[in-house]
Amino acid sequence: MFWSLAVICVLISSGSPAAEEPSWREINPENTIFVEMPEGLVVIELNPAFAPETVKQFKQLAEDHFYDGLSFYRVIDGFVAQGGDGSDLGELSNVPLLDAEFEIDWDEEFNYIHVQSPDMFAPETGIIDGFAVARDPSRDKTWLTHCPGIVAMARNDDPDSSRTDFYIVIGQAPRYLDRNMNIFGRVVYGMDVVQQIKRGPALGNGIIQDETTSTRIGKLWLATDIPKEERLKVYVMDTSNKGFKKLLNGRLNRRQKFFHNKPPKVLDVCQVPVAGRITK
Amino acid sequence: MFWSLAVICVLISSGSPAAEEPSWREINPENTIFVEMPEGLVVIELNPAFAPETVKQFKQLAEDHFYDGLSFYRVIDGFVAQGGDGSDLGELSNVPLLDAEFEIDWDEEFNYIHVQSPDMFAPETGIIDGFAVARDPSRDKTWLTHCPGIVAMARNDDPDSSRTDFYIVIGQAPRYLDRNMNIFGRVVYGMDVVQQIKRGPALGNGIIQDETTSTRIGKLWLATDIPKEERLKVYVMDTSNKGFKKLLNGRLNRRQKFFHNKPPKVLDVCQVPVAGRITK
Repeated sequence: MFWSLAVICVLISSGSPAAEEPSWREINPENTIFVEMPEGLVVIELNPAFAPETVKQFKQLAEDHFYDGLSFYRVIDGFVAQGGDGSDLGELSNVPLLDAEFEIDWDEEFNYIHVQSPDMFAPETGIIDGFAVARDPSRDKTWLTHCPGIVAMARNDDPDSSRTDFYIVIGQAPRYLDRNMNIFGRVVYGMDVVQQIKRGPALGNGIIQDETTSTRIGKLWLATDIPKEERLKVYVMDTSNKGFKKLLNGRLNRRQKFFHNKPPKVLDVCQVPVAGRITK
Repeated sequence: MFWSLAVICVLISSGSPAAEEPSWREINPENTIFVEMPEGLVVIELNPAFAPETVKQFKQLAEDHFYDGLSFYRVIDGFVAQGGDGSDLGELSNVPLLDAEFEIDWDEEFNYIHVQSPDMFAPETGIIDGFAVARDPSRDKTWLTHCPGIVAMARNDDPDSSRTDFYIVIGQAPRYLDRNMNIFGRVVYGMDVVQQIKRGPALGNGIIQDETTSTRIGKLWLATDIPKEERLKVYVMDTSNKGFKKLLNGRLNRRQKFFHNKPPKVLDVCQVPVAGRITK
């Protein structure tokens, strides 16, 4: 079958990063989590700068193989896939509760690239080391924002009640959860695998009643627990690089003939792709 | 295994529509498309009010079984799944080109429910008969907006070059495409099936090189081509109903204890779920 070039070009202008030539950085294996799922590999980059205690505990749980064999038991299409053992109530778990890590102080040393101000949900948005952030300059605070692919800890009403259950955002950014959850990582590879996680009933809060049908985590481990010579290398687009800035500018000013009506000069920080790739 | 109630409640406040009790409306079988995919059923509601000519032609193509057996040949995770035969170039197709149907005149008779003004990408957003729309009161225009699940025609640089290839948005709303594409429907059931469509390489513009591996459309047909007694009934939340307004207000004013930091009082029109369901 012949793929017409015209059709193939239809949306090319909207996001092919190849043309902008951003560079790539290898992510730190100490902050890299490999998740082996039935449909393939998922790679998570942890963010200790924004959620130090959550990352520390999650890494310990990974080292203890806590998550191996557990399932995504609450999955709402277009919203979140929540996984773990569902035993976060105090009496069922020996794992310590985590304090809220909802936002941090602004630091001029951040590798920050500005994306949008004002944003609808925050005075300003940007990207720090590949992570979408929001920022409130008036309070000198910044926080990781709920874009597709972010990984955060579930909790109950108490802000300091995160423990082991986590969720991945799989749909339109639920930004109203910002500054309310311990976001501690993002999926940098394998979102297509995450999208294959079996959904629960949307009108039943996503809970999968028959747990034998839920998607299971085969193995969830720290990259550093894999011998260096066997370990995959993981790269993400270097968002502190000039090529990335050029990519952002190209998206802000759509000059292509394709755009019959020029879009408004605004950017949704969750719609800016920061791609990842793996090599052996 | 015991699913702790606390954990289950974690995000309950964020979107369970059951508590708000909106009512449902049956969608018109004349504007209903059933797509049989390997992983299950997808239902599309067409929108002739916003894209009359596109809908007319798409219905004709469905009646002619044009799409049966064709594949999703360009699929970028987090962006779009594009399907058809890729033969939209004039010399390869006998199907007429479609004029641009990018926006329509505002009509006071619309079943319009206001969602947000200003929105980042438009002066105002709202919902008309279950479809997310944007609106520019200064020009008396309204248009369907690129939320996850919308169905639109691909085209080349010419605004009047849509024909048969279509795409479904599968990721964070690419709102910059608004007022540039013939959006003519939305997936009201089976987005979990759509999310299982095989992805192409993001850095290769999503084109699946080996077409034997792409996800195929089994059958794509009009509901009215199925005998009435065998036909599934399709319902969507009635967005003109008071229950739906209550749901919106609940999302705008998050009163639950869960929200330690109250979210800003804004709504992303693409993050408001308008659920669908089917019955025999």
